[in-house]
Amino acid sequence: MKNYLLTPGPTPVPPEALESMARPIIHHRTPQFQEILKEVEDNLKYVFQTTNPVLIFSSSGTGAMEGAVTSLLSPGDKAIVVRGGKFGERWGELCAAYGIEFIPVDVEWGKSVSPQEIKKILEAEGSRLKAVYVTLCETSTGVTTDIEALAKITKSSEAVLVVDAISALGAVPLKTDEWGIDVVVSGSQKGLMIPPGLAFVSLSEKAWKLAEESTLPKYYFNFKAYKKSIEKNDTPYTPAVNLIMALREVLKLIRKEGIDNLINRHRKNSKAVRDAVKALGLELFAPQAYSEAVTAVMVPEGVDGGKLVKTMRDKYGVAIAGGQSQLKGKIFRIATMGYITEDDLKKGFEVLEIVLAELGYKFEKSAGVKALERGLAS
Amino acid sequence: MKNYLLTPGPTPVPPEALESMARPIIHHRTPQFQEILKEVEDNLKYVFQTTNPVLIFSSSGTGAMEGAVTSLLSPGDKAIVVRGGKFGERWGELCAAYGIEFIPVDVEWGKSVSPQEIKKILEAEGSRLKAVYVTLCETSTGVTTDIEALAKITKSSEAVLVVDAISALGAVPLKTDEWGIDVVVSGSQKGLMIPPGLAFVSLSEKAWKLAEESTLPKYYFNFKAYKKSIEKNDTPYTPAVNLIMALREVLKLIRKEGIDNLINRHRKNSKAVRDAVKALGLELFAPQAYSEAVTAVMVPEGVDGGKLVKTMRDKYGVAIAGGQSQLKGKIFRIATMGYITEDDLKKGFEVLEIVLAELGYKFEKSAGVKALERGLAS
Repeated sequence: MKNYLLTPGPTPVPPEALESMARPIIHHRTPQFQEILKEVEDNLKYVFQTTNPVLIFSSSGTGAMEGAVTSLLSPGDKAIVVRGGKFGERWGELCAAYGIEFIPVDVEWGKSVSPQEIKKILEAEGSRLKAVYVTLCETSTGVTTDIEALAKITKSSEAVLVVDAISALGAVPLKTDEWGIDVVVSGSQKGLMIPPGLAFVSLSEKAWKLAEESTLPKYYFNFKAYKKSIEKNDTPYTPAVNLIMALREVLKLIRKEGIDNLINRHRKNSKAVRDAVKALGLELFAPQAYSEAVTAVMVPEGVDGGKLVKTMRDKYGVAIAGGQSQLKGKIFRIATMGYITEDDLKKGFEVLEIVLAELGYKFEKSAGVKALERGLAS
Repeated sequence: MKNYLLTPGPTPVPPEALESMARPIIHHRTPQFQEILKEVEDNLKYVFQTTNPVLIFSSSGTGAMEGAVTSLLSPGDKAIVVRGGKFGERWGELCAAYGIEFIPVDVEWGKSVSPQEIKKILEAEGSRLKAVYVTLCETSTGVTTDIEALAKITKSSEAVLVVDAISALGAVPLKTDEWGIDVVVSGSQKGLMIPPGLAFVSLSEKAWKLAEESTLPKYYFNFKAYKKSIEKNDTPYTPAVNLIMALREVLKLIRKEGIDNLINRHRKNSKAVRDAVKALGLELFAPQAYSEAVTAVMVPEGVDGGKLVKTMRDKYGVAIAGGQSQLKGKIFRIATMGYITEDDLKKGFEVLEIVLAELGYKFEKSAGVKALERGLAS
């Protein structure tokens, strides 16, 4: 059985990248590897849309998120944490782990934060408020945050805007320098199309100033050490060499396609998915603030959400994601990120229809697949 | 030009492991992946020679070392740090980063720490002394520490023994449970023969007790979260899936060879390397406390150490390592770890002789290669 991966990370890996990982490993403290790291760094800046260095960590995205707390803040600093899903909550957990007092802005899961609410808090708080932690695409709910609006607000404050863009970089618009985003955190296994194990962070000048003064304890995720190294095309600790080889290949693919084409493709594909969902009589979990990287769908009444995901995967080879935490069994999620092709999505909806029918859900046969195809052809 | 890797990490990766990384990625929150993780976990216990869980981190070895400070200790605790090279110093840097007061035991580079010295300090210190941080094989100097003797000493104290076994696990004897070692930290790109990007830690019951009480700040390297997950064949954060696939393959190879055969092979190969070095009239950097994972050799007078390493690599395709920090240009290092075969070592010494001759060093031609071959045949 051929397996299809329509999950919001890991996403399918292009053959060029898979093949590169199977090549004999080279040593990382060599001019040969330095040259590769330089190429990767240049192309990461292109994807991040920044002229600032992009730091590369051997870790999951969570590790780089930890660095975005410990490498920026100092004891006594305060932060705002937007929590509208599992990954927003993680920002709060990270602040708490390091004793950073934070103002939680709790958003109903499936809704997006109001930038005006953040503005009000920033105006009310003094200069102790140093950072606003938000999530670009909340993978657990399929919601997108209006980062452009938030960046306008933080720009005129003393606080930096820190964006978890792990599951959306390269899939939804994110203009780091143009919008004035201070810190962008990302990971390898989503829009960047390679296996998990690498994480990335870019910092604005304003953020680097904060990092210079930061006194929270840190070591492995100390941003300053990585900046010093990357300026010499090096890494402070042994990097995940083969994953960097894979990254090199996908970044070539992204440059070839062009960032605007890439974003447009995700827009079209995710619109087609939403159309297909509606054509099946299903309800979107986030009809307003939907993300173009992952679409969350309400499990219809009478259908067992866990069984839907399991049957699609184990009987038909199509992996989608179920709900997490409070949404377990209530939603399912279909990704449109990275190397997920139109054919993958067609296969996904064919199997979704088969399994929905098996589980007793009533709908017009082929309505989903047809709507998807219309959307993809437009 | 075919490239040979005789460096102390990364080491060559067996084709089975390389090939496994090129297979399409699977999702990590599935019964399929859980089964693989269980197999990997069981085989890691075999290599670690422990019945305790082995935690798996997506990071370089340094990340797991950080965890072995932050997940064990609390503010006010004291530690002993044995510093006889670059990686021993790292333990001290980690303690300092988290405000842990430590007693440095500075050992001349190339020498091994005296267990009696540690015993004296432990007896003199009170119960604030919670951990002794040492390095099994100090990669920067090629020195081995007598862990068995140290474990006997810490066993009757309140302190735990924490061993950085990053560059020696699977290459030199290390009987975790039998010797009573409390914490063993390791990495993927040395004796375990896969690319860098994974790190491992095992903890004894005594160490888990300390971990339960630990209040230093931590998140990504919080051992308790990993223990809870691995008991359910899961990981707290997205793991480096493809590296775990590669790990699965090398662990199969190790089980097939058997841990004792593996250790004996390293013993024989490293002895042959030392014989060959001496036959060339070269001097071992650590003639007494040598490691069987990597051999450090003094650069002979009149030879440029940097040029030796560079010429071997760029002109002849054989990568060995130079010296680090204070040993830069003064030593070179030849690894005998993991998938470095007898043929690789022969090629290495052929090229070493060619380049030594090019750089004007006088020696009996073929003496090194012949001594190596005799050693390997014995």
